[in-house]
Formats: sequence, structure tokens, C-alpha cells
Amino acid sequence: MIQIAVIGSGRASPVELKIAEKVGAEIAQAGHILVCGGLGGVMEAAARGAKSKGGLTLGILPGESKSEANKYIDICVVSAMSHARNAIIARTADALIAVGGGPGTLSEIALGLKIGKPVIVIEGALPRVLIESEGIVKARSPEEALFHAQRTIVDMAGA
Amino acid sequence: MIQIAVIGSGRASPVELKIAEKVGAEIAQAGHILVCGGLGGVMEAAARGAKSKGGLTLGILPGESKSEANKYIDICVVSAMSHARNAIIARTADALIAVGGGPGTLSEIALGLKIGKPVIVIEGALPRVLIESEGIVKARSPEEALFHAQRTIVDMAGA
Amino acid sequence: MIQIAVIGSGRASPVELKIAEKVGAEIAQAGHILVCGGLGGVMEAAARGAKSKGGLTLGILPGESKSEANKYIDICVVSAMSHARNAIIARTADALIAVGGGPGTLSEIALGLKIGKPVIVIEGALPRVLIESEGIVKARSPEEALFHAQRTIVDMAGA
Amino acid sequence: MIQIAVIGSGRASPVELKIAEKVGAEIAQAGHILVCGGLGGVMEAAARGAKSKGGLTLGILPGESKSEANKYIDICVVSAMSHARNAIIARTADALIAVGGGPGTLSEIALGLKIGKPVIVIEGALPRVLIESEGIVKARSPEEALFHAQRTIVDMAGA
Repeated sequence: MIQIAVIGSGRASPVELKIAEKVGAEIAQAGHILVCGGLGGVMEAAARGAKSKGGLTLGILPGESKSEANKYIDICVVSAMSHARNAIIARTADALIAVGGGPGTLSEIALGLKIGKPVIVIEGALPRVLIESEGIVKARSPEEALFHAQRTIVDMAGA
Repeated sequence: MIQIAVIGSGRASPVELKIAEKVGAEIAQAGHILVCGGLGGVMEAAARGAKSKGGLTLGILPGESKSEANKYIDICVVSAMSHARNAIIARTADALIAVGGGPGTLSEIALGLKIGKPVIVIEGALPRVLIESEGIVKARSPEEALFHAQRTIVDMAGA
Repeated sequence: MIQIAVIGSGRASPVELKIAEKVGAEIAQAGHILVCGGLGGVMEAAARGAKSKGGLTLGILPGESKSEANKYIDICVVSAMSHARNAIIARTADALIAVGGGPGTLSEIALGLKIGKPVIVIEGALPRVLIESEGIVKARSPEEALFHAQRTIVDMAGA
Repeated sequence: MIQIAVIGSGRASPVELKIAEKVGAEIAQAGHILVCGGLGGVMEAAARGAKSKGGLTLGILPGESKSEANKYIDICVVSAMSHARNAIIARTADALIAVGGGPGTLSEIALGLKIGKPVIVIEGALPRVLIESEGIVKARSPEEALFHAQRTIVDMAGA
């Protein structure tokens, strides 16, 4: 199964939330598993989107209890590792799609780039902590973000 | 969703494998998610059992790639943390059922006890590195192991 | 530099504390670095012993702040990983000497055995959660514990 | 003891190496502990600088063995956690000084910002993956980098 992470802040703007929900829905509709950090904001919106299409959602939580997961998470990984769980998210995802986001999201983008994972950002919801890097793909919409994620995963599998 | 881990060695005896498969099947039949370390031996047998009943399986892998997962794992968590992933298994599970097992399994039992998780061992497939502790429940069969796991989870939720 | 861990409970008996302090002193006197979990009880007693002989102490903390370290710790590693830090202690130590201890200590013993580290227990301060395993060496005193640790490290380096 | 991390790439330019060595020397001369990732490039240069002034060096390694540490590391933490050790470096340091660096370094900067640690970059050796963030202080020299690190640590302790 292909596992795609949606990463972003626990506090997000209405536009970011709408985009995150659409990305989550696209992932589920394509038959992929949604991976996220399991908390609120972008993570919850993406999971809600995935569930609206009957998808499966995995939340990799930073704390010590399942109770911190949002209600759209099917499976909880309780890491009890604070932000070190960001490295697990980057490893677990076949591709990472960022929707907005601050330093925490930036750390996931950086870890994803470091280990060679496809990283996609979306115009209209770029990370607030700007970063320019040749490894990052810029998509114009949630649909295009998923398209880029899938294409890069396929390219890498074939390489 | 209730998440129950089956823990045990990557190298197991035929009896241990048979018991692990039965435990996995019981977990799935009860509608719970099977959590395991994602590799071979007891982990693979438990996942095979869960899939034989249409269950959902989560493998928390020690290495850097999904490719090390056995073929019965639906969702892979790629920890890249070697044996530190044992702590994540203990946290992620609502209860741990051990089938056989050496030092690695013992570390999961110990971490489970440390954080107050129900830990069940099964007669006929006791951990090879013996341990006596009042926190551990001894079951006579896979069915009884699941029964004890469920009862303790319910007891703890009510406490 | 040789790095030797003293592992044991944050709540220890007077006898255990005395033995832990003596083990820490022996480690420092031999010119080795003392590794421990950085908190109270056995960890603090061992660090106090090491400092009484001018040794160097490393505390690998489970929480998010240096402030939880006992006052005999020279260098703090702030893991923010709860009990997963036990795996880091087992990896970081060239040998592990247990003084008393409950499930947390047992997890460190098990992880040490799993990755092939020398594990020494001391008569008169055996772990409270009993374990029988051929990989564990039983010493009659702090001096003998250090002797066994050093000898096994040398044996392994030569192998 | 104050613990200051020098972060940067394992492959660095001559200018970056020279700056890293000077930063390490400044840290040691001020009586602080040098923290780094323990490998080559900027990490090794910083540790060499610290040792040239009689300082103490801590290397938090990503792999499974002390043998990967550079020869200027006094104390090795063997995390066996790959890039998740970057989160431990960010937590363990009272301040982070970046010298050049790619995505791995960026993940440490981001994690440092996320948990409120002072992050200093140095003109003439800015991270190759550019980032603009209000939390980052730009210093003109190694001396100024240390000055900013110390001042921010003092400010935060007083707050």
C-alpha cells in the first residue's frame, strides 16, 4: 500500500484547512493510506478528508496517549517521542505533501529531503517558514499535489 | 479502536508460530487492530492469522525501509530506530500478548509493565528468557489470552 | 574512552544506593565514563560515587529538560523520548551494571542482551524483577562487577 | 554546564571547516561543552577546535557503533536512530550554531526553533538550503555567534 503524509500546523488558516481536507480526500480516493501527525489543524482536516472518502488514516502521535489523536484517526502510533516522531513520519511516508506549516513542518520537509522522499508544497498554502530547495515540487492544487506524489513514487520505484 | 500487540521472536518454533497465528486470528475476529514488529517468525504468523479473518495489521519496523515488512502487514511504520521501536510498540498497544520470545520480547514485556500496560503470556509458549512478575497474566490458550487482554483494557478504562 | 552504565531504579533501598555509589566510584577510579539515566535513586548514587573520585558523568534523560538531572551529572543528553531512552543507554554503554531495579531496569538489561552488551548484576542487589539468562554475569561485589565489565569489553574487542 | 551544539554538514567547504573549528574553539575557551553529531566535516572540525582549547566534546551519533565517531569526540552517545537523533541534538543543546549545512542541518534548525532554542547562523557560512525565519540570529563571525548564543541563553534563563 502507498502511504502519503500530509504535514502542516496544528493551527492553520481556513484556506489551509480547506486545502488539507481536499488533499486527504484525494489520497483516500486514490486508494492510498493517509499518514499524519494525528493532532489538530491541518492533520485533522486531512484525516477528515480521507475519512469522507472511506480512506484509512494513520496518526503518528508525539505524546504518551491515544487520547490526543483527532477523531478521524483510525490507527494511532503512540511514539512518546515529542518532535522526534517527525523523523518517523518522514520515513513512514512514501511522499510528503505540506499544507502551510511552521518550524515543525519545516523539520519534516527537511528530513524528507534528507532521506530522498518526494516533498510537495501547494501554491496558496506554502509553508510559512519559507524554504527554497531544488528537491521540493510546487503544485498548483491538491489534485496536482497528489499527481506529483504518485509520479515521483513511481519514478523512484522504477529507478 | 482497540490495538493489541503480539510480541515474540523472529525465529520461533512450530508450536509458537501456530499459537501466534491463532492469537492474531482471535484479535481480528474480535474487531481489534493487530500491532506487531512487522518482521518474520511470531510477528508474521500473528499477522497472517489476523488477515485470515479479514483484520487490519500494523507493523512497527526497526529498519529504514518498508521492504522488510512481512507480506501480511497492511500499514508499515518505518521507525529507523532499531530496538528503540520496542518502546513504541509497548506504547501503541492497549495490551501486549507475548508468544515465546527472547531478550527483544523481554524488553517489550518490561516496557509494557513499566508504563502499566496489560501483559499476557501463554502457557505452552512462554518467553524463553523467563521472568516472574506480578504484573504478568498467564493464559492457557490464545482465546484466554485475548479474553484477559480485553478484560484488563476494560478494567483500566473504567478505573 | 570506555563508557559503563549503571542502571537501576529511581527509588532504591539504602543497600542498593550504597552499592551503586561504590560501583560509580570504581568506574571513575578506573578512568571510565559513567553513563546513567540521569535521575534519582541508583542513578544519582552512582553519579555521586563517580564524582567523588573525580570522574565524568553522562546522564541520558527521559524528559524534555536538563533540569530533571541530578546534581552529579556533568553532561546531559535530553532525549525527550521517555523510556525509549533506555535503548540509547544500552547502545551507549560498553557494559551495563545493574543495581536492583524494576521493569525499567529490566528493559535495559534485555536491550543490552539483545545487542550483545555485557550485563552484570550484583549479589545483594539483584534486580527485583527476577530474570534468569545465560548472558548475565553475576558479581559478588562492586569491584568484581567492574572487573567483569572490563574483562568482557576486552574479550569482545579482541574477538 | 552550558552545552552548545555546532551543526553542519558531513561534507563541508574549506571555509566552512575553518569557521566550524573556530566556533568549536570559542565554545571550549568559554568553558562550555561542545555538542555535535559526532561525524565528519563540520562536526569534526568543531570538535577539533574544542579539543585544541582543552574543551569537552559530546557526539550524538546516528548509527549503531561508537566507531563512527570522529577522533575528537570525548563522549559518544550511540543513538541507533538515524536522523531522529537530530531531535536529540536540538533538545540537548542550550543553543545551536549552524555552519553551512544542507537538509539535515535544516531539520536541526527547524527543530531548535520549534522548541524555542536559540539558533545562530554565520555570515560567510550560511546554510545551503536557505531559510528565512524571525527566530534565527545572524552573526558576522564565530566570536559573535558565541556571544549571541550566550546572551540568548542568559535571556531565556532570566525570563
